[in-house]
Amino acid sequence: MLEFTEALASGAATPGGGSASALSGALAAGLVAMVARNTAANPGFADRAAELEEIVTEAEDLRRELVGLVDEDAAAFDRVMAAFRLPKDTEELEAARSAEIQESYKAAVEPPLQVCRRALRILALAEHVAEHGNPNAASDAGVAALLAASALEGAALNVEINLGSIKDESYRTSSAATAQRARAEGATLRNRALETVRARLS
Amino acid sequence: MLEFTEALASGAATPGGGSASALSGALAAGLVAMVARNTAANPGFADRAAELEEIVTEAEDLRRELVGLVDEDAAAFDRVMAAFRLPKDTEELEAARSAEIQESYKAAVEPPLQVCRRALRILALAEHVAEHGNPNAASDAGVAALLAASALEGAALNVEINLGSIKDESYRTSSAATAQRARAEGATLRNRALETVRARLS
Repeated sequence: MLEFTEALASGAATPGGGSASALSGALAAGLVAMVARNTAANPGFADRAAELEEIVTEAEDLRRELVGLVDEDAAAFDRVMAAFRLPKDTEELEAARSAEIQESYKAAVEPPLQVCRRALRILALAEHVAEHGNPNAASDAGVAALLAASALEGAALNVEINLGSIKDESYRTSSAATAQRARAEGATLRNRALETVRARLS
Repeated sequence: MLEFTEALASGAATPGGGSASALSGALAAGLVAMVARNTAANPGFADRAAELEEIVTEAEDLRRELVGLVDEDAAAFDRVMAAFRLPKDTEELEAARSAEIQESYKAAVEPPLQVCRRALRILALAEHVAEHGNPNAASDAGVAALLAASALEGAALNVEINLGSIKDESYRTSSAATAQRARAEGATLRNRALETVRARLS
């Protein structure tokens, strides 16, 4: 944990904001799993055992996938930087380099798009456990919603900055639209989850 | 990193949302340090070297303090749970137990209040590096602002849930007001930082 924050803080380009966004999503998924487990351990919620077990399973899958995306995001951006270091001494080499730069930017858009998709699921699960889970853990469900929303917004910023270097217009338009839809849906889910948390805290 | 998300995901009450909020702040501070270092390494920003070095120093202090607060938050809540397990067999023991429960709740409000204060500083630094730093790192400054804002909001939720158990009304009122002010100031700083990032991305 300390080491990862040190790696972020270094002047190296990776890990950077894309990896930090994925980790924020993994923390959010961990908190959803925690609230579901904590609720399942309470005899007052025995009638919800099967549903809570499903939530734990899905949240744990999301958590592990998002931890994986922390490294995938860094690896994808390392490939972009490697592409810029390719030789461009001949026309042929220069064309190959340009093609690889474009391909690597497209590959770098994938991890943050995956983070966006997973963050949307976590937001839905966070709202569910905020409403139906142990009220003692309502603030944990609220933090899950906050961290999932930041994961999504941060990943969308990373999609956007990479798309800025991509020449394929149809790819650019469709990826930007996907990120934009996720942001809009995420903002709605975030607000709904936080309203539910506030209602349970008061 | 993986292990910390596993510890969060367990059904144990700590680490929970308070620790996750502190870690979100530490990630944000790390990203501010990264953007400042990355900018300082660019010859185009040589005239800002002294200012950037100060930002790195402050962001690194904040990062280490927030990593410390991850554990402090968990330890403070462990103390609350230990207080509830104290014996209450006699009137005297019961009074001592009640007093320790109240003291431990007050102590548990401190770490998230510290996270709120530090998150405000990070938000101000994130906006500064978004505006004056290397534009290639603008999305990293944006993710820093997002993660610092979640740290602040998440910590404020933790202040609020703990205050709900505190009987000392003047303490409750003043701590709630401090958290509320921090949230309002944080929302303004977050929006300003993200506007700056958007302006630099386009």
